[in-house]
Amino acid sequence: MSLFRPNIDKMQGYVPGEQPREKDWIKLNTNENPYSHSPRVAEAIEKAARSRLNIYPDPLVRAFSEEAAKQFNVDPDWILPANGSDENLTILVRSFVDTNEVISYAYPSYVLYESLAEIQGCECQRLLLNSDWSWDLDRVRPEIERTKLLFVPNPNSPSGTLWDDATLTSLIPPNGIMVLDEAYGDFRSMRDKGGILKGEHGSRIVITRTLSKSYSLAGIRFGFAVAHPDLIAGMRKVKDSYNCNTLSIAAATAALMDQEWMLKNVKQIQLTRERLTLALRLLGFEVQDSETNFVWATHPDRNHEELYQELKARRILVRYMKFPGTITGLLTGLRITVGTDAEIDTFLEKLKEIL
Amino acid sequence: MSLFRPNIDKMQGYVPGEQPREKDWIKLNTNENPYSHSPRVAEAIEKAARSRLNIYPDPLVRAFSEEAAKQFNVDPDWILPANGSDENLTILVRSFVDTNEVISYAYPSYVLYESLAEIQGCECQRLLLNSDWSWDLDRVRPEIERTKLLFVPNPNSPSGTLWDDATLTSLIPPNGIMVLDEAYGDFRSMRDKGGILKGEHGSRIVITRTLSKSYSLAGIRFGFAVAHPDLIAGMRKVKDSYNCNTLSIAAATAALMDQEWMLKNVKQIQLTRERLTLALRLLGFEVQDSETNFVWATHPDRNHEELYQELKARRILVRYMKFPGTITGLLTGLRITVGTDAEIDTFLEKLKEIL
Repeated sequence: MSLFRPNIDKMQGYVPGEQPREKDWIKLNTNENPYSHSPRVAEAIEKAARSRLNIYPDPLVRAFSEEAAKQFNVDPDWILPANGSDENLTILVRSFVDTNEVISYAYPSYVLYESLAEIQGCECQRLLLNSDWSWDLDRVRPEIERTKLLFVPNPNSPSGTLWDDATLTSLIPPNGIMVLDEAYGDFRSMRDKGGILKGEHGSRIVITRTLSKSYSLAGIRFGFAVAHPDLIAGMRKVKDSYNCNTLSIAAATAALMDQEWMLKNVKQIQLTRERLTLALRLLGFEVQDSETNFVWATHPDRNHEELYQELKARRILVRYMKFPGTITGLLTGLRITVGTDAEIDTFLEKLKEIL
Repeated sequence: MSLFRPNIDKMQGYVPGEQPREKDWIKLNTNENPYSHSPRVAEAIEKAARSRLNIYPDPLVRAFSEEAAKQFNVDPDWILPANGSDENLTILVRSFVDTNEVISYAYPSYVLYESLAEIQGCECQRLLLNSDWSWDLDRVRPEIERTKLLFVPNPNSPSGTLWDDATLTSLIPPNGIMVLDEAYGDFRSMRDKGGILKGEHGSRIVITRTLSKSYSLAGIRFGFAVAHPDLIAGMRKVKDSYNCNTLSIAAATAALMDQEWMLKNVKQIQLTRERLTLALRLLGFEVQDSETNFVWATHPDRNHEELYQELKARRILVRYMKFPGTITGLLTGLRITVGTDAEIDTFLEKLKEIL
C-alpha cells in the first residue's frame, strides 16, 4: 500500500530537458544562454566562498531585493527572491490555490504549471490559444471566471510570441491572480519594466523573472517575483525561511549590477535569432517571429520527432515538443535555443544534411 | 478581499532566529557552527565560480548523492539532496499529507513543523513529551494511530537529548511515515549511520540531514534525505526540477569529502559543550546533557526572557524559547549554541554579571 497522497502517486512528474554531462554536445534544448556569466559575478562568488558560510543567509535577501527593485522602479518590499523562478511558481500555487480551486494556463505554453497543479491536488484548465498564438477572449472568458490563479508566460514558450498589456489586462481573473511568467522578458525587442503592475488591476498581477536565461546563470538557481507588497508579504509566509543561499545571492546581486554584460549578450542573441529564423524559413520551416532566446519551428512535411532524433544522433540537442488537444488538435514542433553563431552554423549545416 | 488561501491568511509565518548583519555580535541563538568551513569547500566553490554557470545543474545531483550514499552505506538512489533540510521537510509534507490527514510532532521540539502543517492546510498534533523529555508511549499511541506523517528530531531541540532506536521504532505510525530529523546527528557522542532504516519497518522511515551545522555551511543551504528508494522516487516528483545549484552542490560534495575537518570541529564543540554545561550548572541552572551543538538551560528562580534581554543588551544573542501547553504547562528556557571557547567565556562572564 502506498502512503503517498493519491495525486502524487498518480502523477508522472515533470521531465526537464535533457542535460548531458559531457561538454561536446551542442545544447539547443533548454534555452540556456550560450555566453558565460559576467566576470564580476565570478568575483562575487569567489569573495563569498571565503566569507562566513557558517552563518545563515539573510532570510529577506535585502541586498538583492534592493538591486531588483531599482530595475522595476519599485520599493524592495515589491520583490520576492527565490531559489529559481520555479520556486516562486510553487510558492504562488501554495499561497493562492486550495484543492477545490482552479489553476488555468495559456495552452500551449509551459507544461510545468500542470505538474504544479497535480502536486497541489487542484484542477488545472488549459486555456486554448488560437493557432496564431492569439487569444479568443470570448471563448476563454467562462474558464477565466472560475480561475483562482492564471499563468501566462510572456513572451510565451514554445511560440516565442508576446501579448500586449491591453490583452493581458483583459485576462485577469475577476476573483483571482494573474502570473506573468517573464522568464524571457529581457529578450524582448522593447524592454519592459513592469508598468502593468501600476495599472488599475495591478495589485492582482505577479510578475516572475529569472536570472537563468538573460544573465547566463541557470546554474545558480535564482529568480524573483515583482508584485504589490501585500501579495509579497503573504507569499513570504509560504517560502522556506532561508530559500536563497549566500553564494547565489552574491552572484545574483553582482549580475544585476552588471547590466552592460547582460545587454551585450542579449543583443548578440537577438542578432543570431534573426539569422536563424531566416535560415530556417529558407529551409522550408514555418517560424514564429521570436521575442525570446529560442525559435519555434514547424515543417509542413517532415516528422518533427524524426528530425529531433536525427539531430541527436549528430550530438545536437533541440527540444521536440508535442502538445495534444490544442485548438487544431495535436501540435508538434521543434523549439530551438539560440546558441552561439558557431553552434547555429553547425546546427544549420547538419539540418541541411538531414533534410 | 484577500485572495490568499484562508490558512495562509490566518497563519503568522515561522519566525527564524535573529540574524543581525553586523559582525560584532556573539551569536549563540541559531545553532550555527562557530568554526569556518573547510578550505577544500572554498576551493570547490572558487572552481565552480569559473565553470559553466550558464547551464542548468544536474537535476539528480548525482555527484553529491554518491558521496552521501557512502556515508550511510546505501546506494545513491536512497539519497534526496535539497535546498536546505527545510526544503526536504516541505517536500515530505507535500508528498504524504492530504488536507484531511494529520501531521504529528514531538512537543516541545521544532515548531517549524507546525508552520508546514498550516501551509499545507492539514491538522497538526503535538505529541507531549514527559518533563524529562522521554516518551509516554501509552499516552500518545491513539494520536500516533491517526498520524500520516510524524516528525521526531533526534537529537531533539531544544532539549539536546536523544532517543534510542527501540523507542523510535515503537513510534512509527501504523499507517504513516516517521521522519527522523537528524539536523544535529553528527554531534552525537556515538555516531550513527542510519541503521534503523535497515530494520523491519525501515521502509516507513525518512532520515533528514543538513550540512548547516556540523559542516559549518548554514550559508549554502544544503540538506539531504535518506530513505528507501521507493520513498525517494515519489518525493522527487514533488521537488522542483533543479532544486540545488551548481555552487552549493560543489561546496556540499567537497564538504562530505573532508570528514576530517568536520570531525575536528565537532570534537572541539563537544569539549566546549561539556565545559559550558558544567559552568551553567555551577551558576544554578538546570542543564540537560546535550548530544547536539547547543544546551538547554532553565533556571529555577530567574525569568528567562529577562536573562535573554540582559544578554542581548550586551550584544550576546541566545534563544529565549517559550512552549505553551507542555505536559507541565508553560515551559520557558534558554537554548544556547556552543560557540568558540572565547565566545563561551565572554558569555559566562556576562551571565555572571547579570545574575
